[in-house]
Amino acid sequence: MMNGAESLARTLLAQEVEVCFSNPGTSEMHFVAALDKVEGMRCILGLFEGVATGAADAYYRMTDKPACTLLHLGPGLANGLANLHNAKKAGSGIVNVVGEHARHHIAHNAPLTSDIQGVARPMSAWVKTSESAKSVAHDGALAVHAARQAPGQIATLILPADTAWEEGSGIDTTPYTGQRSAVASDTVETVAQALLRPLRTALLLGGMGVREPALNWVGKIAARTGCAVLSEYNTPRLQRGAGRVITRRIPYAVDAAVALLKEFDQIILVGAKQPVAFFAYPDKPSLLTAPHAQVIPLAGAGDDIVQALTDLSERLQATTMPPLHVADYQPGELPSGALEPLGIGRLLAALIPEGAVVVDESVSTGRGFDLPTTHARPHDWLNVMGGAIGFGMPAAVGAAVGAPGRPVILLEGDGSGMYTLQALWTMARENLNVKVLVFANRAYQILRGELKNVGAGTPGKNATDMLTLDRPCLDWVALAKGHGVPGRQASDLASLAQALQAALAEEGPFLIEVLM
Amino acid sequence: MMNGAESLARTLLAQEVEVCFSNPGTSEMHFVAALDKVEGMRCILGLFEGVATGAADAYYRMTDKPACTLLHLGPGLANGLANLHNAKKAGSGIVNVVGEHARHHIAHNAPLTSDIQGVARPMSAWVKTSESAKSVAHDGALAVHAARQAPGQIATLILPADTAWEEGSGIDTTPYTGQRSAVASDTVETVAQALLRPLRTALLLGGMGVREPALNWVGKIAARTGCAVLSEYNTPRLQRGAGRVITRRIPYAVDAAVALLKEFDQIILVGAKQPVAFFAYPDKPSLLTAPHAQVIPLAGAGDDIVQALTDLSERLQATTMPPLHVADYQPGELPSGALEPLGIGRLLAALIPEGAVVVDESVSTGRGFDLPTTHARPHDWLNVMGGAIGFGMPAAVGAAVGAPGRPVILLEGDGSGMYTLQALWTMARENLNVKVLVFANRAYQILRGELKNVGAGTPGKNATDMLTLDRPCLDWVALAKGHGVPGRQASDLASLAQALQAALAEEGPFLIEVLM
Repeated sequence: MMNGAESLARTLLAQEVEVCFSNPGTSEMHFVAALDKVEGMRCILGLFEGVATGAADAYYRMTDKPACTLLHLGPGLANGLANLHNAKKAGSGIVNVVGEHARHHIAHNAPLTSDIQGVARPMSAWVKTSESAKSVAHDGALAVHAARQAPGQIATLILPADTAWEEGSGIDTTPYTGQRSAVASDTVETVAQALLRPLRTALLLGGMGVREPALNWVGKIAARTGCAVLSEYNTPRLQRGAGRVITRRIPYAVDAAVALLKEFDQIILVGAKQPVAFFAYPDKPSLLTAPHAQVIPLAGAGDDIVQALTDLSERLQATTMPPLHVADYQPGELPSGALEPLGIGRLLAALIPEGAVVVDESVSTGRGFDLPTTHARPHDWLNVMGGAIGFGMPAAVGAAVGAPGRPVILLEGDGSGMYTLQALWTMARENLNVKVLVFANRAYQILRGELKNVGAGTPGKNATDMLTLDRPCLDWVALAKGHGVPGRQASDLASLAQALQAALAEEGPFLIEVLM
Repeated sequence: MMNGAESLARTLLAQEVEVCFSNPGTSEMHFVAALDKVEGMRCILGLFEGVATGAADAYYRMTDKPACTLLHLGPGLANGLANLHNAKKAGSGIVNVVGEHARHHIAHNAPLTSDIQGVARPMSAWVKTSESAKSVAHDGALAVHAARQAPGQIATLILPADTAWEEGSGIDTTPYTGQRSAVASDTVETVAQALLRPLRTALLLGGMGVREPALNWVGKIAARTGCAVLSEYNTPRLQRGAGRVITRRIPYAVDAAVALLKEFDQIILVGAKQPVAFFAYPDKPSLLTAPHAQVIPLAGAGDDIVQALTDLSERLQATTMPPLHVADYQPGELPSGALEPLGIGRLLAALIPEGAVVVDESVSTGRGFDLPTTHARPHDWLNVMGGAIGFGMPAAVGAAVGAPGRPVILLEGDGSGMYTLQALWTMARENLNVKVLVFANRAYQILRGELKNVGAGTPGKNATDMLTLDRPCLDWVALAKGHGVPGRQASDLASLAQALQAALAEEGPFLIEVLM
C-alpha cells in the first residue's frame, strides 16, 4: 500500500521535480515521512518559509524546472508569499505543497485553521485542495503541469493531512505536453517592417529574451537594422559579460528612464512589457516611453521568443550576420581607495569568475553596477522581479542548488538582507558556494531618496527613525557567525578585493560586510 | 492644507492610537512624513513586517488598545500575515495601514502591484481601500472602530499613495461607542442551575476570563459550588502567580487532555471555546471533552465576561465568599544541576519578578512550566494564540512597549525564535527591558514527537534533515550580538540562574542561550 503522501512524492519525482525547499510542521509529517521512502528528492530545510520560496524562484531560473516547497498551513504559506510574489513576477514555476488539517478537523476551528486558499490565491495561478487520498497523485501532476506553463507559474496544492495518510492511488506519470506559444508570422512581419523604417528603434528585452540564445539573434538583428538593444530594469536571468550581446538597462529613476526612452520612436517588446515606473510620484508619468513612440509587441514572456527572433532574423536576412554589440573581455584593473558604488562595480568586473551567477538585491548601492561589469567574464545576473525585498539571500541558495559547480555572488543591501537572513544557515548546512556581499550603508537608503521624490520633504525625527538602521548598527559578521557562515568586514576597495579573492578561492559560503 | 496622510495620522491619534509599529516603503513616504508633523505617535521600526504585527498583538493584550502598523504594499502585508493570524486568534485589535500604488498607477501592473485586499482578507475582519484623500480620515476612524470591536479585530486600511498626498478633509474624531455584549440573564440562570447540579463541573476560561477581575469572581463561584477551574491550553494574557486564582491548563497532548476532561460531566465556557485538538491524528478524536459531557456557554470572547461572572456570583450568592484556589507565595529554592524542563520551571518560579510579563513561545521545552511557576510572584503570561511560530520575539517587543516599567521574560524555542529574530534589533534600538531565554535543543523537537503521533514512523535521512537544527548549530549569542543585544550561554541551571539574575538587575535587552 502507498498512502496519499507517498503517491504525491513519487508523482512529483516522476514529473521531474527533484528538489524540495521545505519548512514543514505537524500536518506535513506524512509527506516528510514519504520523502524518506523515495530516492532522488533533495530536501533542503529553510528556517523561515521565505527562504524556501525565494530559493525555488532562483532554482527555476537556473534550471527551467520547478522545485516544490513544503509549507505548514496558512501561516507557513503566508510567510512565503512575498517571495512567491517575486517568483510570480519573474515567471518562475513553483509547486507549493501546503499542509492542511485533516478534513474532519477543519470545522473545529483549531488555532492554526485559516483560509489557505485565500492566502494562496493572490500569488498563485493555480490553487487546489485535494479532496481525497485517491486524487492526490493526479492533483500533484496537475500542479506540476500548471507550474511548467510558460513562462512558469505558481501552483499551490493544499494537502489535508488525512489525504496524506489514507491509501492513495499510485503515481501519475502523465507527461507535460505544454509548449510556448508560437508567434504568428503576421506579427513577425509587422515587426520586420517596423525595423526597416527609418525611425529610431529599440528592441526591449525581458524574460527569455535576455538569455544567450535570444541575445545572439538580437545581435544579428541589430547588425542588420541598426536598432538599439535595451533590457528591462530587472530581468530574471540576464546572460552577460564577455562574448554576450550588450543590453542597455532602462534606469530605475523615472527622469533618467524617460530621458533614455525619448530617443526612440519605436519600441519592440521581446519578452518585455511596456516600460512603466516602479512607483507613482506626484507630477511624474507612469508610462516611461515618449508620448509619440509606437510600442510594438513581438513576443510575450510565455511565447517562443527564440523562435520568433529566429523567424525575424530570417525575414530580415540577418541570420548569417555577425552579432553587433558583443562585449569583449576587458576586466580592467582592480581599483583601490574608498568604497563607493562605481569602484565596487569595477572591482566586480575584475573578479567575477567565469560562469558565476550574480544575485543582485543591492538596491541603491548597486544601481550602477551594470555598466562597469559589462566586459567582465561571462556570467548570469539575477534581479528581484517583484520588488519585494528579502529575495537575495534565499535566491542565492536556490541559484547555488540549481547551478552546481558555479560560484554565486550575492550583492545584498543591509536593509533587504535582514528580511530573510535565515538563508545564511541553509548556505552553511548545504555548504553552498555563495559569497555574500552586504553593502552596509545602515539605512533604507533608497527611501531617503524616495521621501524627496514623492515631495514629502526633509525627514524629521520619526521619519529618520524609520529610514535608518543605525542605533544600533547591525554586525553582519556576527550575524553570519550565528548562522554558521564565516565572514569579515571590508572598509575599503583593497580589503574588499582581498576578502572576495580569498573567499572565491575556497568552496562554501562566506560573508563580507562592506562598510559603505 | 492637510493632505490625506496627515488627516489619517491625526485621526489615528484622536482615536487614541498612539503607537505605530512600522516597516514602510516608497508608497508610504507621505504617511511617514505626516508622522513627523504630529505629536504623540511613537514610531517603532521593525526590520521585518512580522515584527511589527506580532508586536501590535502583544501591545493590545497589555493595553486593550489597538496600535497601528505601517506596511509596504501586498508583500509587506504578506510578511506580517502569520502574526496577524495569531492576533486574530487572540482577539487582538490592530489597525494595519498598508500603502498601495497611486490609483492611476495600479492598472500599469508595476512590479510591486498585487491584490492587497486579497492578501488582507484571510486574516482581517475589516478591509477597505480608501477611494480619495477626502475619505481617508473617515476610513481611519472606521478602521480603529473595527479594531476595537470586542474582543478586538484586525482592520486593514489600504492607502493609495495619491490619497495620501492629495488634500484631505481634516480629522475624524467620532468616538467609538461599541461595547461588549451583555450576557442574557437566561444564560446566567442556565449556568447557575448547571453549577448547582450534583455533577462534576468545570469552568473553562479563555480570553478576558483569565484576567484578574474575572478570576476573582471565578474563585468565588468555585468556593460556592466546588467546581474545578480550567483554562485553555493557550490564553492571550493569563494573570497568575501569588494572590491569583489558579487555573488548570488543558494539556497540549490529545491523550492527556482527554484524560483530564473525562473527569467532567459539565464544562462551562467562559470566554473559551469548546476544547479541540491542536492537530488531527489518525485514530485520535478532534473534540477533547468526554462524549457524555455537556458543554454550556456562559460568555464568548467578545461578551462582557466580567459582568456575566458578577451576575452569576450574585445568582449563586457567592459575592462575599473568599475566592477558592488562590495561589500563595512559594517561590521555592533555586534548583541546580542539569538543564531540563522541570528544573527550568522551578528556576523561573524563584526568579520571575513581581509584575513581570512572560511571553511564552517555548513550544516543547516549556510545556510544563505552568505547574512549577504557579506560586511565583504575580505576573502575566502570554501565549501564541494561533499556533504560527515566530510570535515570541515580536510579542516581547510589543509587551515591553505596552507595559513600560515591567520586565519582560521571553521563553523562546530556537526553531520558533529564528522566524522573526529581527525583533532583537528593535529591542536594542528601543532599549526594551526584555530578557530572552532561547531554549536551544537544536531541533524542531515538537515535530519529532508529532512524526510519531501521526503514525509516520521513525525519521530517516530526509526527515531527520528537516527536523534538526544542528549542522551547523546556531550561535544565539552571536545572533544577538549581530542585532546589538548582549548575551551569554548557560549550560546548567546554576549558570542560567546567575545569568538571569544578572540580566534582571539591569535595564535593557539581554539574551541567554540555554543549551538543552
